[in-house]
Amino acid sequence: VTGTMTINEIGSFFIGGRVANLNGLPPKEARLTTGSPAIKLDLSGDFDVGQMYVQYVKVVSPRARYPLLMWHGGGSTGATWETKPDGKPGFQMFFLAEGHDVYISDAVERGRASWARFPEIYTADPIFRSKREAYELFRLGPDASYNTDPALRTTYEGLQFPVEAFDTFTKESVPRWNSNDADTQKAYDALVQKIGPCVIMVHSQGGLFGFTAALHAPDKVKAVIALEPAVPRIDAGEPGLAALEAVPHLVLWGDHLVGPFWEPFTKNVCDYGQILRNAGATFTEIELPKENIHGNSHMIMMDKNSDQVASLIQKWMIANHLMK
Amino acid sequence: VTGTMTINEIGSFFIGGRVANLNGLPPKEARLTTGSPAIKLDLSGDFDVGQMYVQYVKVVSPRARYPLLMWHGGGSTGATWETKPDGKPGFQMFFLAEGHDVYISDAVERGRASWARFPEIYTADPIFRSKREAYELFRLGPDASYNTDPALRTTYEGLQFPVEAFDTFTKESVPRWNSNDADTQKAYDALVQKIGPCVIMVHSQGGLFGFTAALHAPDKVKAVIALEPAVPRIDAGEPGLAALEAVPHLVLWGDHLVGPFWEPFTKNVCDYGQILRNAGATFTEIELPKENIHGNSHMIMMDKNSDQVASLIQKWMIANHLMK
Repeated sequence: VTGTMTINEIGSFFIGGRVANLNGLPPKEARLTTGSPAIKLDLSGDFDVGQMYVQYVKVVSPRARYPLLMWHGGGSTGATWETKPDGKPGFQMFFLAEGHDVYISDAVERGRASWARFPEIYTADPIFRSKREAYELFRLGPDASYNTDPALRTTYEGLQFPVEAFDTFTKESVPRWNSNDADTQKAYDALVQKIGPCVIMVHSQGGLFGFTAALHAPDKVKAVIALEPAVPRIDAGEPGLAALEAVPHLVLWGDHLVGPFWEPFTKNVCDYGQILRNAGATFTEIELPKENIHGNSHMIMMDKNSDQVASLIQKWMIANHLMK
Repeated sequence: VTGTMTINEIGSFFIGGRVANLNGLPPKEARLTTGSPAIKLDLSGDFDVGQMYVQYVKVVSPRARYPLLMWHGGGSTGATWETKPDGKPGFQMFFLAEGHDVYISDAVERGRASWARFPEIYTADPIFRSKREAYELFRLGPDASYNTDPALRTTYEGLQFPVEAFDTFTKESVPRWNSNDADTQKAYDALVQKIGPCVIMVHSQGGLFGFTAALHAPDKVKAVIALEPAVPRIDAGEPGLAALEAVPHLVLWGDHLVGPFWEPFTKNVCDYGQILRNAGATFTEIELPKENIHGNSHMIMMDKNSDQVASLIQKWMIANHLMK
């Protein structure tokens, strides 16, 4: 936040996880760092797996009723909510200034949460996102618009993503696995139990965990706010569905949602919302272009108009009695 | 910080790094997350490597002359300086309250800085620290004192590390490589150039980079404060040595520094200090037990008496004209 603000506490903690024991790996002689004595490393032993990192900033006299938990998307860390790639304040800053206590996590396997040896503990290989994939999948431009040379890249007309900062943005990208969802959900569920009544904001893959967290703890999760989210697969018989009546859901969509990835992705959310509405829940989808807000990428919270989108969310929170 | 404090800004950025291009890896079909459409992943392409993550909290009207940069040790991230494993405020909190702007980084390959594919980009394998290694190498107890069962672990008498939080502490551990020191140094040097005049506080492996950063930018680095640091290998002809006359160095040591790892480790620092003193620099080593402060582990900033140690550092900073 630029501009003086009074805070009550800054802190962090780790939550969730279990211990994995590895046996029978051969010891290895190595120097841990240049010039340090060589030591015999025992590759076997006890290792932590499945834990998550959470950092919080608490304001003095919060105006929000509940803490706001921000859950990043796949291939990201909590940095996704902080200062934007162009150096401007992001969603963390915006919602702190609006009087929310903000909890930002690094999910299992990402960032400060750490990751575990594969294939011995994690069963899959890590997936690294290339700069081309980030550029085109996140809809800065159409297929084949990325080029190693920034001068030769093309963008969608009216794009809101600060494309001049794209090569800074991709430094935030971290590897991911598609084998750890159960551990990740468990850690997020533990976080909700620890914090108590809260509002969850998710981006992209984070939706999988945020929507499920609401199903698992409809007494604790007071709302789910989702930016272009993935959704869990459920049907009308899903346990916990009826209790979602008291948990309003908001979904926001950016621009240019076409092609073989985004069309089924948005369809899944549409189906999910219908199941929730049939069960009596409030599930609101807002397509920003239909509100005359054009050019948003998949990274809505980093786009140049992020304050405008955050204001729209804040208004929805006021309307849904989430502010004091 | 518990207790109201007024801050000017919270933010983060990425610094350093370069682009590596991978070619000829076979494409792979994968779902990025449960239920999401399968996409063809191109494992080739442009990838970021060598960048670092930095998060800062700036206080209103700093009483310190220069920002304080905190650089973690090997196998750690910036979380090392935040809330301690027992939930008590750590060094970040202490020095913010004393009026320092605090910049905490995740070094290259660690935490939010991300890491790159091996062996295609990083040339070595990652090194994972077992819980036994953390327990015994960090001197919570002597050799063979660790046990998977917490009830069967033994500790040094009078140990300051909050051993009841050991199984929370090890969740902070991240993999490391011993092949990336050049990239790491480059990113730290870029950080010093970006921030300008600053004080660097390092822990363990961070010493390698912090001492070298002072040699590379003696005009910018106003002091180096080192907790049980590793040191670079230099000799009396090292370029930049003479300019360190204006850069006071403080080294702190905990308790139980015996055995085949710690004896050469401390000897290296002693030799390094002598080279600096011969060149006219101030290089002060404090063994905490000789100051009647007993029981400190390698993780001094997480020990129960961390405020006592931080106060000693703060006094040294006052004496060295680093406060206004």
